[in-house]
Order: sequence, then C-alpha cells, then structure tokens
Amino acid sequence: RIAEMAKLTQLIENEIFRAYATYATIVLLKMMLMSAFVNPEDVPFGKTEAGKKYLRTDPDVERVRRNHLNDLENIVPFFAIGLLYALSGPELSTALLHFRIFTGARILHTIAYLTPLPQPSRGLTWAVGYVVTVSMAYKVLKTGLYL
Amino acid sequence: RIAEMAKLTQLIENEIFRAYATYATIVLLKMMLMSAFVNPEDVPFGKTEAGKKYLRTDPDVERVRRNHLNDLENIVPFFAIGLLYALSGPELSTALLHFRIFTGARILHTIAYLTPLPQPSRGLTWAVGYVVTVSMAYKVLKTGLYL
Amino acid sequence: RIAEMAKLTQLIENEIFRAYATYATIVLLKMMLMSAFVNPEDVPFGKTEAGKKYLRTDPDVERVRRNHLNDLENIVPFFAIGLLYALSGPELSTALLHFRIFTGARILHTIAYLTPLPQPSRGLTWAVGYVVTVSMAYKVLKTGLYL
Repeated sequence: RIAEMAKLTQLIENEIFRAYATYATIVLLKMMLMSAFVNPEDVPFGKTEAGKKYLRTDPDVERVRRNHLNDLENIVPFFAIGLLYALSGPELSTALLHFRIFTGARILHTIAYLTPLPQPSRGLTWAVGYVVTVSMAYKVLKTGLYL
Repeated sequence: RIAEMAKLTQLIENEIFRAYATYATIVLLKMMLMSAFVNPEDVPFGKTEAGKKYLRTDPDVERVRRNHLNDLENIVPFFAIGLLYALSGPELSTALLHFRIFTGARILHTIAYLTPLPQPSRGLTWAVGYVVTVSMAYKVLKTGLYL
Repeated sequence: RIAEMAKLTQLIENEIFRAYATYATIVLLKMMLMSAFVNPEDVPFGKTEAGKKYLRTDPDVERVRRNHLNDLENIVPFFAIGLLYALSGPELSTALLHFRIFTGARILHTIAYLTPLPQPSRGLTWAVGYVVTVSMAYKVLKTGLYL
C-alpha cells in the first residue's frame, strides 16, 4: 500500500503535471469566483440591501453572467484537453508556454469583459485561449490517436 | 502489456482514488438526472400530454433549469479540482471528509432548490460545497505549486 | 526524473487510455466548434456585416446556443465519468464500444439539432449518449465503490 501511495504521489511530483495542476487550479478558482457573483440569490449577503444594490445593477450582473458562461465554455475544455496533453509527454518548456498563455489570456479576457475594454481586446484574448486549447488537442491526437 | 494494465488498475485500487471516483460519479449522476428534466424536447415522453403537463409547469421547469446550471457551475470544478487533489497525496480521512461533505451539501442544495425550502438553506448548502472545493484547491497549490 | 517521465508516458501508451483520450478530444473539439458560433461578439468576424447577417439570423443562433448548452451538459459528464471508467480496468473492446457509440451519437445529435431533422432523431441520439454515460458510471461504481 505504501508503494502504491508513492506511485500516486509521483504524479504530483512530475514537473509537467505539477505545472498543469497549478494553472488548471488558478483558472478554475477564477471561474468559481465569477460564479459567486452570478448566483446572488445563493450568496448570503446577496439578500442584504447593499448586496441587492451592488448585484442587481443591470446590465452589470448580466455581463458577469455572460462572462461566467464563457468561462465554463472555455476553461472546462482547457482542463479536460490539458489533462490529456499533460499525460501525452510534451516538452516541459512547451507545456509551460501553453499553460501560461492560456491562463494569461483568460485573466485578460475577464478584465476586458468586466471593465469593459473596447474590442477587439475581448475577441483577441478569447481567440488566444481557443488556439492554445486546439494546439494541445492536436498534440494529444498526434501522440495517442487510437480510433 | 500486462504490466501496464496492472499499473493502471492500481490507480483504481488506491483507496483515495476509489473514494474520489465514487463520490465524483455520484454527484455527476445527480447532475445528469437534473439535465434529463431541463431538456424536455429531447426526452421522448416530454412530447406526450403527461410529459407536457408535468414539465411545462412554469416556474417549476425554470427552477430545475437554474438548479442544473448551478450544478454545472459547482460540480464541474469539484470534479476537476478533486481529481488534482486526489493525486496530491492527501490523508485518506481528510479526503473522505472533503468528498462526503461536498456530496451531502450538493444533495441538500438540490432538495432545498426543488422543494423549495426557505432560505438560507440553499445559500448555506451552496456555500459549504464552495468552501470544500476551495479547500481542496488550496491543498493542490500548497503541494504542487509550479508556476 | 527520466524514470518518472517514462511512467507518465506509459499512461498514454496504454490502449484503453489512448482510445479514451482520442474520443474525448474529438467530442471536446466538436463542442468547442459550437462555442465559436454562440459567442459572435467574441469572434472578430462576428462584428462584420457578413458575420452579423450569418450569425444573427434568429432562431438559427438560438438553435446553435441550445445545442451547445446541451453539449456542455452531456460531453462534460462523458469526459469526467469516461476518465474514471478508463482507469477502472475495462475490457478494451467494451471500452471502445462505449466511446464509439457515444461519439457517434453526439455527432448525429448535432446534425439532428442543426438541420433540424424531425423527432425522434434528436431525442434518440441524446438518449443513446446518456445511456452510454450511465453504463460507464455503473462500471466505475461496481469496480471501485468506496463510500
């Protein structure tokens, strides 16, 4: 049993997997932070006067809601494809490049969405994250294709 | 090849991973059960008279829909962060505590949403699941941070 | 460190895991393709006259949007439960059957949604994907239950 545990722990000790776990956790936490604002009815302070005033200011709450849905649509595929990518034996430097660019692009996308910044800032950051995910998918299929 | 298979099977034989797989599957099945009710047009019996009567009673169907979206927003991060957490070498008892509290909170959240129970039952169950997920994310970053 | 890398790479060399990674990546890419059409405001050409004309034709854009949400609700559980299933030591032939039927059903579901084909084509393809996912969940719980 101890040998087993050691084997599992080695996964988190692998540098590529650690990098994946770190960046995936960061973007997932960012997504969860958004979700706290789109469920005002679930958040205790959402029912207070201050909470209502802050959260009910349309179209602000709508903007947060759309940004959160956009996160779900983009961060979930990144998590999923990124996991398969991290297990497909990429170069550490290439993997880091993918994870860092995606994470940076999604943080900038949220800033562009919420500020809001003039286009094409939002479109560009969205596209960058999209291309990074497709690039990882390509590597997974190239390495491991089994139909 | 047999050695390889054995190695893969060992993952599911690890107690922490088995606990994770069990609770993750339970909450994912719960989420899927909800999704059957928010897609009446896709469900064969949704087109029958009884189906229409049952499913078209607004605001009931809207309540199920919002609960399902809330599930997607909370159960998907739990699955993702929980997987990384299960691979980060936590104590079995601590891991079980996280998985059990999250699963219980989400089941109670659904009951609170659908009954519906008076607040703050829904807000509290939502918050408990949220805090459990953030706690697992903290452990992942503490164990494996690699920026 | 080289030994570690080898161990990680073995996961992608396992035939069941490779089959899982291949089909999961295919359906995730299909889902991402849909998401490009539901965020016209994020896509650079969405702001051009041609883009507006193509994408703003209600109820076409609404149909794509609903199909994409349906993808999120079904492909994400497939990815999640499928991963646990692939690690639970299934027979290669059984696993391939699950992955191929699910992928085929979801591609047909999208065709049925977008054409649109008369019911029950959409309902049937949705149900097939649903049953495949539940079948994998059953196998995970049967193999690895740890409450």
